[in-house]
Amino acid sequence: MNRTSLINLIHAKKSFLCIGLDTDLAKIPRHLLDHDDPVFEFNKEIIDATHDLAIAYKPNFAFYECNGTKGWLSLTKTIAYINNAYPGQLFSIADAKRGDIGNTSQQYAKAMFDPQSSGMNFDAVTVAPYMGEDSVKPFLSYPEKWIIVLALTSNKGADDFQFFTDNECRLFEHVLSKSQVWGSKENMMYVVGATKAELLSDVRSIVPDHFLLVPGVGAQGGSLQEVAKYGLTKDCGLIVNSSRNIIYASSGKDFAEKAREEALKMQQEMEQLLRG
Amino acid sequence: MNRTSLINLIHAKKSFLCIGLDTDLAKIPRHLLDHDDPVFEFNKEIIDATHDLAIAYKPNFAFYECNGTKGWLSLTKTIAYINNAYPGQLFSIADAKRGDIGNTSQQYAKAMFDPQSSGMNFDAVTVAPYMGEDSVKPFLSYPEKWIIVLALTSNKGADDFQFFTDNECRLFEHVLSKSQVWGSKENMMYVVGATKAELLSDVRSIVPDHFLLVPGVGAQGGSLQEVAKYGLTKDCGLIVNSSRNIIYASSGKDFAEKAREEALKMQQEMEQLLRG
Repeated sequence: MNRTSLINLIHAKKSFLCIGLDTDLAKIPRHLLDHDDPVFEFNKEIIDATHDLAIAYKPNFAFYECNGTKGWLSLTKTIAYINNAYPGQLFSIADAKRGDIGNTSQQYAKAMFDPQSSGMNFDAVTVAPYMGEDSVKPFLSYPEKWIIVLALTSNKGADDFQFFTDNECRLFEHVLSKSQVWGSKENMMYVVGATKAELLSDVRSIVPDHFLLVPGVGAQGGSLQEVAKYGLTKDCGLIVNSSRNIIYASSGKDFAEKAREEALKMQQEMEQLLRG
Repeated sequence: MNRTSLINLIHAKKSFLCIGLDTDLAKIPRHLLDHDDPVFEFNKEIIDATHDLAIAYKPNFAFYECNGTKGWLSLTKTIAYINNAYPGQLFSIADAKRGDIGNTSQQYAKAMFDPQSSGMNFDAVTVAPYMGEDSVKPFLSYPEKWIIVLALTSNKGADDFQFFTDNECRLFEHVLSKSQVWGSKENMMYVVGATKAELLSDVRSIVPDHFLLVPGVGAQGGSLQEVAKYGLTKDCGLIVNSSRNIIYASSGKDFAEKAREEALKMQQEMEQLLRG
């Protein structure tokens, strides 16, 4: 999906909500365990109940890999469902945080973006910047696909290295400055955690136009109002993710309905924020 | 596998060779394509031909994920084969370069270390340090399992961020200093690329006793002699990886035999180096 289509989607749905599909077998409603593939069934019902309120879905790969080959199959079915049931209506993010030497990142790019090879066709993948340019560039050779580079994450450990500084800038700022020339605002985004919303103005001074993927609203304590205050641009420029608050709103048979209620609250707040 | 067993393995085999199973469908001998699972068949023949010369195998996950669910199955069969055919004789490394917020890294740890959950039981996993302590710690709660933290990688892009400096130390040194207290030399190693062998003395001044996983010998241009000169300790302290030079030594039906010849050359050189 290209940038214009993404922006059109945001305007049409009056939403910049991404729903994180961190689907954990131990947390999903018990009645789903009767299905052949409970993880896929859960995802399908969540997507069906929220697809008009969310612009994006983001399966985090860890929650699938922990189930081995079966988990990888649930993941493959989930991305196929997103693409086939709602074509052109949803942006899909492989939250995989990959990154390796160039030769190897090429293979990761095939895994995420080449359905003929892997069976999966995501719009975007999250990548870790530690290994530098050649670890990131192979993902950028796919037209209308995106990389989302970790800049400032929402967790406590973000303080360990991301604020390391040469007295002129901090590592996360160095990552933003240096990496933005590898691609463009048409194929690169950055992860900036909602738990550090006040730093969004520092981020915006370096990447004024790039889309930012913002995790950490909800369970991790970040505020949507704060994120919008410092991060919104004329093109929106934000994709805000919520996972646990939405997908685990209920552990009963009404889980999809309750997920919709939580998603609707966020969409309505976003509609207000987009109006300014 | 614990540190003592690993050191015993090195002494018994007079080798600190790791063979990287970067198994690419486009590069393996054509006759293997008749098998149901050519990737697994290739790995099995390579392992059978070299298991007495290598102390470790390191499948890089990218080369499996690019084949989707089928690739994940090849990977699962490969680690099961290593564990079942040669119990206690081989150290296994999941070269996955994972790392996410704590809640999520727990799931990645299950994927790598908990066969009841994922079907996979590796001894070690490579992890990216960018997200800090909570992204790394969940892996350390498994007894006799290891994390191998990226410090100084072998690729060109390593220069982009790993040498970012606060004038007292460079980022890779900061990663070494800060992370080593999260675990110990009993459950942590570091990736240090052979292409920067002269920097191994700087690395050794911070982590004198930790094992180092050294990629980049061979195809990437690093020298085994140089690595040993700066990196060897009284307990060896090194696991040197070679992938393409060994596994693609021949593209014919003699691929396993030729792989053994290349592995033997390295083992013999290592035997000399271990003697001092």
